[in-house]
Amino acid sequence: MRQQSKIAVEVRDVVIGGEKPLVCLPLVAKNSDDLLGEAELLKPLHPDLLEWRVDGFAGVGNIDACLDVQARLRRVIGDIPLIYTCRIDCEGGMAKLDQDKRRDLIEAAISAGTVDLVDIELCNDRDFIASVRSKAREFGVKLILSYHNFDETPGENFIVEKLEAQCRSGADIAKLAVMPKSYSDVLTLLNATNRARNTTVDVPIITMSMGFMGQITRLAGGLFGSDVTFAIGKDASAPGQIAIERLRDAMDIFYKQV
Amino acid sequence: MRQQSKIAVEVRDVVIGGEKPLVCLPLVAKNSDDLLGEAELLKPLHPDLLEWRVDGFAGVGNIDACLDVQARLRRVIGDIPLIYTCRIDCEGGMAKLDQDKRRDLIEAAISAGTVDLVDIELCNDRDFIASVRSKAREFGVKLILSYHNFDETPGENFIVEKLEAQCRSGADIAKLAVMPKSYSDVLTLLNATNRARNTTVDVPIITMSMGFMGQITRLAGGLFGSDVTFAIGKDASAPGQIAIERLRDAMDIFYKQV
Repeated sequence: MRQQSKIAVEVRDVVIGGEKPLVCLPLVAKNSDDLLGEAELLKPLHPDLLEWRVDGFAGVGNIDACLDVQARLRRVIGDIPLIYTCRIDCEGGMAKLDQDKRRDLIEAAISAGTVDLVDIELCNDRDFIASVRSKAREFGVKLILSYHNFDETPGENFIVEKLEAQCRSGADIAKLAVMPKSYSDVLTLLNATNRARNTTVDVPIITMSMGFMGQITRLAGGLFGSDVTFAIGKDASAPGQIAIERLRDAMDIFYKQV
Repeated sequence: MRQQSKIAVEVRDVVIGGEKPLVCLPLVAKNSDDLLGEAELLKPLHPDLLEWRVDGFAGVGNIDACLDVQARLRRVIGDIPLIYTCRIDCEGGMAKLDQDKRRDLIEAAISAGTVDLVDIELCNDRDFIASVRSKAREFGVKLILSYHNFDETPGENFIVEKLEAQCRSGADIAKLAVMPKSYSDVLTLLNATNRARNTTVDVPIITMSMGFMGQITRLAGGLFGSDVTFAIGKDASAPGQIAIERLRDAMDIFYKQV
């Protein structure tokens, strides 16, 4: 059996960090009708989790519009746990928002009580992270602290230390996505994940090596300690994601005995 | 693209160590009718290679009987490259044969001109290896020197050194199969394979981590330098092998761009 997380996270009866790695589908539509349509389309695929990439939503600058579509989205997806993510352009995301506006948006989303997890980058300033973390704790929303590198794969020590830093900053889940330039880089990501899981990182971990070379980590990263893999339902949110049906067929080969 | 072998091996127009890892199916039937029936059954699955596990054949002690079925086998399989393997019980194989008898059998098989590769264990004595190697060279048959450990996974250095030792002993292809006790052991095998491919081992490599835990190496070992993966056609010849159709479907995910 794969190495489980020492501390599991449970949201709406879904266990992150347990026996099986989970499959999450991103919602990346630009307008509310498309978003709700995308959610209707993805629901029958039974993703374990959904992620709303709010930064892909054209109305991201309007908090009321976002809260309205968030409420409608929850009615569509029923009890599927929802990750709320608003990445700005300098983080590899799609939104241009100043930090105060973004913090207000994220905290309003948390307070609405219809999202289960929120993902923010560890590279944000301490006050931003502290404020979102405090609001998340208040409303029982789980905090994902993440690190992305779309250019390269740092060394194994750097990756483990980044996951540790996320824990120290109060992450309920530590997430890291990096770009490989070789299959050695892909192994670096898997080695670091395995080491973090077996040593210092007690919370659930989400790691992946992006792009075509990294696809094997989306398929098999769970064996080495990654607790969630992102797949394609309708559209991809990052390079290298695999269609959910194909991914699950292949995962069945080596997780079946679980 | 995956890291190819510096020296590729070509048999019957099939390139081992090239852009794509190859899929080999074992023939493990006990008697000649079953063996030829198994070959008929496997041929339409289009394996890149076939391996006759002669040690699974009840007539293994009778050289003439073996040569007769070998000739008939070749007529059935047409131009599919054939690996000839006779492992004895102390090597994890099924045959009880003394070394002289086994050497005579293997050399007769080579001289018959209907097998393309022969696999023997590196742990055999020097004279045995030298004799088989010399006969193989004489008839243009490629030599696979192999190491199996059905109990555990040695360290990364040990694995790399074993592959290097196989090269020094004249292997055209270096093969190593080990048993994992954890997913860390699985990574050790992949790390060693990747390191061998990128540094000192110039010939094609065949490595795998056996058993259920090691299945990911049968699927994705090719990304990190393993040039052949063994799958199930009719029956498995080692623990952890995956049915060929399922294996190829999953491999298509990350070798498709090749």
